[in-house]
Amino acid sequence: MEKKIRIGILGLGTVGSKVVDLIQVNKERAKIEYGIELEIVGIMIRDRNKKRNVATKGIRLTENIDDIVKNPDIDICIECMGGVGTEQTKNAVIMALCNHKHVIMSSKKCLALYGKEIFLAAKENNRQLRIEASVGGGIPICSTIMHMSQGETIKKIFGIVNATSNYILTAMNNDKTYEEALTQAKKNGLAENNPEEDVDGLDAAYKLCILVRLCMKLDVNINDIQPVSITKLSVNDMKAAKEEGKIIKPIFYANVNEKEEMECFVGPYAVSKENPLAFVNDNNNMIFVEGKYSGLRAFYGQGAGASPTASVIYDDLMDIIK
Amino acid sequence: MEKKIRIGILGLGTVGSKVVDLIQVNKERAKIEYGIELEIVGIMIRDRNKKRNVATKGIRLTENIDDIVKNPDIDICIECMGGVGTEQTKNAVIMALCNHKHVIMSSKKCLALYGKEIFLAAKENNRQLRIEASVGGGIPICSTIMHMSQGETIKKIFGIVNATSNYILTAMNNDKTYEEALTQAKKNGLAENNPEEDVDGLDAAYKLCILVRLCMKLDVNINDIQPVSITKLSVNDMKAAKEEGKIIKPIFYANVNEKEEMECFVGPYAVSKENPLAFVNDNNNMIFVEGKYSGLRAFYGQGAGASPTASVIYDDLMDIIK
Repeated sequence: MEKKIRIGILGLGTVGSKVVDLIQVNKERAKIEYGIELEIVGIMIRDRNKKRNVATKGIRLTENIDDIVKNPDIDICIECMGGVGTEQTKNAVIMALCNHKHVIMSSKKCLALYGKEIFLAAKENNRQLRIEASVGGGIPICSTIMHMSQGETIKKIFGIVNATSNYILTAMNNDKTYEEALTQAKKNGLAENNPEEDVDGLDAAYKLCILVRLCMKLDVNINDIQPVSITKLSVNDMKAAKEEGKIIKPIFYANVNEKEEMECFVGPYAVSKENPLAFVNDNNNMIFVEGKYSGLRAFYGQGAGASPTASVIYDDLMDIIK
Repeated sequence: MEKKIRIGILGLGTVGSKVVDLIQVNKERAKIEYGIELEIVGIMIRDRNKKRNVATKGIRLTENIDDIVKNPDIDICIECMGGVGTEQTKNAVIMALCNHKHVIMSSKKCLALYGKEIFLAAKENNRQLRIEASVGGGIPICSTIMHMSQGETIKKIFGIVNATSNYILTAMNNDKTYEEALTQAKKNGLAENNPEEDVDGLDAAYKLCILVRLCMKLDVNINDIQPVSITKLSVNDMKAAKEEGKIIKPIFYANVNEKEEMECFVGPYAVSKENPLAFVNDNNNMIFVEGKYSGLRAFYGQGAGASPTASVIYDDLMDIIK
């Protein structure tokens, strides 16, 4: 007989819907390969009247968060609440952990601001906390770092972690103005209606905080990072860089220097045309990790999109179950 | 009180020595972070008289392989036997699995030829088998694929997996002859005295077999891959490619086509100057994996060297223990 795994989901936006979809699609495979039956018990939604593109027949939909996080019939809670209500998200996931549920999180802002508290709650309740979807979209960077840093000392991480900014700067490198590039990004679902958090570098700063915690076991205060916005860049800036054999890219950088001080940067930066980051275009991300033993390693993939993000959430789910 | 983990090691060459070193260096950390005591019980060596650069005081050195693989006092067996005696390696790891030891393997040729049998032995004996060091040196590609392919369908993998060939072709792209480049590679410890397996593409073919098994759950017969050697390339070939805006790189490629047939290639191939693989130089590797949900992802790092390889073996060890 199969072991039943009962799942609760917080949020049914684009990512949440894709997660529901992926769980349904893989039901048979999970049965055959792992002998488990995946059951979605309930989903917390914000607006009952919103039209959704996913089959939820037989699943309890609720507007009351406690129906999920305090529900004794749920083993694993998947949080897909997005960027709104960060404190509410924190309270929800901590409540789920305290109610003995393993938790899979995707909200990066919440993890950047309250990561210490949330990881502590997971430890104290002896529950698993997985956060792959919070950084790098479909790139399995978090679990890779957790896996690979065990005998390792990591002092430096850098790369491109914001898909929206990279998409816009890629278009500007092809002679589009900032406004044209932003319009194009919105049209392709790669920029939100209010794109401030992405283009002003806050989104990348959140991810920097999360990666630094994983790689270096350090807390960075989000207020200590002063990201530089890409909104002030013009096509002329891009051209001037090109004339010097460079390309402007949305870079993040965190380094523990020789005095053991943390140096951080988030913002547009002109990299050499020969730099591998020069070839990371559109909505792709690439994250470099420098280890004492393993040298420089890098991880590349789509940094945004419901499908890649849902795919890593499903991997987190399978990993917890195994 | 700490839980004691008793380790046996097969082989004390460059990788084996570095593994011993890394385990000793991390002893305290393993105690503090995971509450475990790592103890190396025994090491199988081939030549007792060989001088070694690693401290083995208090560790039993033996020339009899059974002292390790049949030793009831050993929990985990780490295989660092290198490319010689592939059948002996297979027998040793299967014997270790049958004697209820978890196994960490590094010998790619053995895994390419006997992978099916070895994985089956692990399954039947309900033991863990980790193989990270067999492909991509310090790149955690195997565990990443095992982790990320759970809800995923992978049809295509490609990239650069042979550090020696890539080092040689990088030098040839900088106007060295094949002979000069090979001499330089040997001097830097990146080519063996007999470099045939690397430069003729067999090494990359072994890794292709291993990756195909992990990604696509398929067996490739090594004889069905007919790798193309890089030894026939001249500086003129490199120049001719450059004039067409291309760079010759040592590529591997495996694709399940629309008819569900496997297409494989291993050998030198001219990639566009804008292709990310054009920027993978020296002893670095880069492996691309194309998934149905997650799109194209890639993993980059040093493809050879005792230190990166030992580092992923140590990660395998910690993962088994956890």
